[in-house]
Amino acid sequence: MDLSAFQAAPFVLRRERLGRALGNQQALIAAGLPSPRNYLANTYPFRACSHFLYLFGLPLRGAFGWWNGNSWTVFTPVPDPASALWHGPEATLQELEGRLACRVVDVTTLNAGLLDLSVQSLPAADFRTCAVQAQLVNRPIEAGIISPADHPLADAMVALRLLHDEAAVAEMRSAVMATTAAHTAGMKATRPGRKESEVRAAMEAEITARDLALAYGSIVTVHGEVLHNEYHHHEITKNDLLLADVGAESSGGFASDVTRTWPATGIYSDTQRTLYNVVLQTQKDLIAAVKPGARYRELHMLALHRMGEGLKDAGILVGRTEDLVEEGAVSLFFPHGTGHLLGLDVHDMEDLGDRAGYAPGRQRTANFKLRSLRLDRDLVPGMAVTIEPGFYQVPAILQHPEFGQDPKCKAMVNWSRLADYADVRGIRIEDDVLVTEAGHEVLTAAIPKEMADVEATMRG
Amino acid sequence: MDLSAFQAAPFVLRRERLGRALGNQQALIAAGLPSPRNYLANTYPFRACSHFLYLFGLPLRGAFGWWNGNSWTVFTPVPDPASALWHGPEATLQELEGRLACRVVDVTTLNAGLLDLSVQSLPAADFRTCAVQAQLVNRPIEAGIISPADHPLADAMVALRLLHDEAAVAEMRSAVMATTAAHTAGMKATRPGRKESEVRAAMEAEITARDLALAYGSIVTVHGEVLHNEYHHHEITKNDLLLADVGAESSGGFASDVTRTWPATGIYSDTQRTLYNVVLQTQKDLIAAVKPGARYRELHMLALHRMGEGLKDAGILVGRTEDLVEEGAVSLFFPHGTGHLLGLDVHDMEDLGDRAGYAPGRQRTANFKLRSLRLDRDLVPGMAVTIEPGFYQVPAILQHPEFGQDPKCKAMVNWSRLADYADVRGIRIEDDVLVTEAGHEVLTAAIPKEMADVEATMRG
Repeated sequence: MDLSAFQAAPFVLRRERLGRALGNQQALIAAGLPSPRNYLANTYPFRACSHFLYLFGLPLRGAFGWWNGNSWTVFTPVPDPASALWHGPEATLQELEGRLACRVVDVTTLNAGLLDLSVQSLPAADFRTCAVQAQLVNRPIEAGIISPADHPLADAMVALRLLHDEAAVAEMRSAVMATTAAHTAGMKATRPGRKESEVRAAMEAEITARDLALAYGSIVTVHGEVLHNEYHHHEITKNDLLLADVGAESSGGFASDVTRTWPATGIYSDTQRTLYNVVLQTQKDLIAAVKPGARYRELHMLALHRMGEGLKDAGILVGRTEDLVEEGAVSLFFPHGTGHLLGLDVHDMEDLGDRAGYAPGRQRTANFKLRSLRLDRDLVPGMAVTIEPGFYQVPAILQHPEFGQDPKCKAMVNWSRLADYADVRGIRIEDDVLVTEAGHEVLTAAIPKEMADVEATMRG
Repeated sequence: MDLSAFQAAPFVLRRERLGRALGNQQALIAAGLPSPRNYLANTYPFRACSHFLYLFGLPLRGAFGWWNGNSWTVFTPVPDPASALWHGPEATLQELEGRLACRVVDVTTLNAGLLDLSVQSLPAADFRTCAVQAQLVNRPIEAGIISPADHPLADAMVALRLLHDEAAVAEMRSAVMATTAAHTAGMKATRPGRKESEVRAAMEAEITARDLALAYGSIVTVHGEVLHNEYHHHEITKNDLLLADVGAESSGGFASDVTRTWPATGIYSDTQRTLYNVVLQTQKDLIAAVKPGARYRELHMLALHRMGEGLKDAGILVGRTEDLVEEGAVSLFFPHGTGHLLGLDVHDMEDLGDRAGYAPGRQRTANFKLRSLRLDRDLVPGMAVTIEPGFYQVPAILQHPEFGQDPKCKAMVNWSRLADYADVRGIRIEDDVLVTEAGHEVLTAAIPKEMADVEATMRG
């Protein structure tokens, strides 16, 4: 851990704000432990829990931050002298205390007796730490499950993390710089005959070279229609579009999340141009609508309408746009949500379920066109969201009796015209957008997305 | 999961052999679950547990293999039809059954009632699966702890995995090919002014481009004296040596593990040449001694003697070689073991503690020069081991009252001569060696290690 550049000030402020929100309610914030890959000593790269990173800024393995109703304490393992032989010098608790501007004590002094019976705690990302937490707070703590007793802490964290302070925005900008380099490198590295994995390697190398991690598992695929694609073994052939959803994480843990879709040969075909334009125009209209007060679900509805109009123009859908949206015919080709919150997590605070993404009193509906929407809040300056419409031909959706083969929907699709677009399996265009007083700022604006810019980048 | 190239035959054979060894003792082999990175849906790349991969070959998330005393069954989650919308088509249980050549059934039918009370099970790598296992076998199952009840299964797995079959050797060769490309690329990418992370990126890109994973966290550092170095933020300066310990994992999960140490400028300095030669000659002598019947601890003792002689020639140590080894003066500069088992895990079967590395009746000693040795077996054709002597100036060791500052040791070091070697903080040369009937085969022989070859590679 390189402490030399660490500045405590933003974290002190965040802790003060959370402390004020909690008042005399106690809270225990877990940093988490490394997760083993195949045995205890061979771990995945450690990534501390987002709530801890938000408040303390340093990835202290096995640490806990404690608000006792009055002040903050960090409990952290004392560096083992034997470990210095293998891991090099580590910061002492005194040094950490100076750096963090917070009381720091030995984690072995942390026990259930010290804590208030009503202490609140949010589950760590890793199951090992959840078990430690459960012992400390003396009740079940499970990843993905927020107990009602912990709702006040969850809501206080959401209120803070939802509106990014200057330090958070700076982190996101630094992540975006690496992501920009990655996408540019990916465009340049693409050609027919290469494997998806070769393009992925070129993209991730830009992020690794900057000593940053990936914010999430990269999607780099000629099968963009597989939305959560984890495979990279296909050869890129000349009629393919390559969909790349790759984002860096800043050194402080903040995510970027960007998708671009470019042609294998460096030139979009006519059919690819048509549908790329539908998605691009939709995305631009959506971004233009990002401003304080806009309700995110309405952005999603706008996306469905714009995509519906575009797909009518392309000859793929037939009927009144309102009906195409309402009956789910547009969602056949755009089955996911328009975007999500962005911050320390790529789906920010998804560990709290929909508490962050959905404003109080709002909840997901079961409807096909809305059920995958992760965000329904009125936008406020300081929020960061993704805007990521797409077009996909997912066989499992198009052939599904409840979706593509539902008689009403089926009749709205011009299937023979659709067959002409066989060289478009998946397109997504995704940017990271900060809501500002004046409207918005596209953090990822430097990443080529106009077809001419993409083609020029690919020519190099 | 790309099933098209999968061949069941070697796994059928391994399962038959394990079944014969177990007889009517039941066994439950966990495949494991993905580990969350910051929330449940954002996981680290899934890597199945090694014992499962060894027997079944496919990374089936949440699966278990069950030996009922008579035959094998795989319990695995039935693909969720809703998931096909997002993840693309997945193999049905029937298709898996055909591929695996093994009975495959729905994992939800697996319950404690089905299993023998004395069923044995080895802890999965991830804590979530350990909790599932504990419920199934109705007793505690904890990562890193092998209960005596499970020793017969552990020992049967060790007996099998210790001697690599043809399929295992083929996997190791394929991992080595990617590792060879990575080290060559690293040498070419190195120059003063670049950051360690840039060289790391160039190396890992070769592995990622081949659609392979890393077998362990890469060490790419100008601070080779930090043995478990995880940081890559330093700038490479002209007097530095760069130590790179980077290895690919094959598609079937087998590890390679290679270290090379090269000069920032492409030319070793005179002091670097001297000590590099000491390590290289030691390593060659050790490899020459790898053959059936050789005891690995004796190889380590040979390493200490050769290093002692070399460091005397270099003027750093003073005295009789036997005394230098015995008093731990050599170990000051070479504090780790000469190597370890290699297979599906980079430290093969380290999840079983020393059961794999140490032959029955042998155990680690507390002595400084032996306590870090992970392997003490008599070598047998089919074993794969690393040979990795090194030289390091670790401040925490040299300044330690029990080690470098112990009066006996201290007097054996020519400290002013040592100061002349300030531009050598860490050198390690590590190869992967297969024990054969005839002696041995260096699997990693194509990776440059002669100084002239390294320098020629760096010139490009």
